[in-house]
Amino acid sequence: MADAGTEIETLIELMAKLPGLGPRSARRAVLHLVKKRGVLLMPLAEAMAEVGRTIRECLNCGNLATGDICPICESEKRANGQICVVEDVADLWAMERAQVFTGRYHVLGGTLSALDGTGPEELRIPQLRDRIAAEDVREVILALGATIDGQTTAHYIADELGESVSVTSLAQGVPVGGELDYLDDGTITAALSARKAL
Amino acid sequence: MADAGTEIETLIELMAKLPGLGPRSARRAVLHLVKKRGVLLMPLAEAMAEVGRTIRECLNCGNLATGDICPICESEKRANGQICVVEDVADLWAMERAQVFTGRYHVLGGTLSALDGTGPEELRIPQLRDRIAAEDVREVILALGATIDGQTTAHYIADELGESVSVTSLAQGVPVGGELDYLDDGTITAALSARKAL
Ligand SMILES: [Zn+2]
Ligand SMILES: [Zn+2]
Repeated sequence: MADAGTEIETLIELMAKLPGLGPRSARRAVLHLVKKRGVLLMPLAEAMAEVGRTIRECLNCGNLATGDICPICESEKRANGQICVVEDVADLWAMERAQVFTGRYHVLGGTLSALDGTGPEELRIPQLRDRIAAEDVREVILALGATIDGQTTAHYIADELGESVSVTSLAQGVPVGGELDYLDDGTITAALSARKAL
Repeated sequence: MADAGTEIETLIELMAKLPGLGPRSARRAVLHLVKKRGVLLMPLAEAMAEVGRTIRECLNCGNLATGDICPICESEKRANGQICVVEDVADLWAMERAQVFTGRYHVLGGTLSALDGTGPEELRIPQLRDRIAAEDVREVILALGATIDGQTTAHYIADELGESVSVTSLAQGVPVGGELDYLDDGTITAALSARKAL
């Protein structure tokens, strides 16, 4: 396709495997990289190699870490008796950006899914039970997606943990700044049934 | 933002500089890379470093090349007396994918633009004139965008080359498979004025 040889074609093929990039946008991205060799291509190659060398999963919670244990699990300040359960690291980052949760996390690495054949043993659910006692946890906050799989997973975890700990879930409702007009029926239904007195 | 440390943050910031990726999609891409360390992250780091080490601009035409001269300029088969002038390498690739042009290219590296202050000396226009004699060129085909800047550049090049060579331009009209309903007025006007007898 590109007559600049196999180096460019290899790079385009790999870039096209990134989420959100198809063949066309991969080609555009590669041309941009070649134009910005010094300020973007080489720094990006080095940053990727560095992440590949140093980043792994926290053995305790599944967050990304440069050592065995991530900074959040290492921080005694975050041991406040609360664990927030999220599906993946992107959700953990979203919670951290909100700067409202001060406890620790537990990253499941997915949700239960009959369709994909994802059972409890594929997720980090047994480790969650171990952490309840080890970290003196009082409350497990389930911050899972409002999808069928997310809610199935939430109920499964609540059943598994039983009476050992208080299990809560993020409230469902109208997003801040959200216009009713753009919301799906499920969100409006959830928001109505969870309505509060002013 | 990410508590996995500066390595991840650096990588997200660099990825967000790629065309078509914002901060959010850059974060998603980086998490995908971390999950696919062996099959995607490390190969991508290596492919980028390899392209950075080996790829440069063809001294003759501006195409990407691993040596001083690109494979198209090196091929005697492509010396058919035609040069196709394109704005950038992406357009050259698009022409090559169509597998219909058998001559050589000349990559301008942009278009004339009063707004951006891009004059003829910023583009590869003087080199084009030199190639007419050196490569025994009979026809220069202008494959520039149907934009104001593209058409200004086309007319400038036609004037510059004067009578030394035949200068043609890609036809404008309805794209193959294009529905009239989705076309802008300019395209319809161009297609109508260039209409042919069936
Ligand atoms: Zn951790
Ligand atoms: Zn060339």
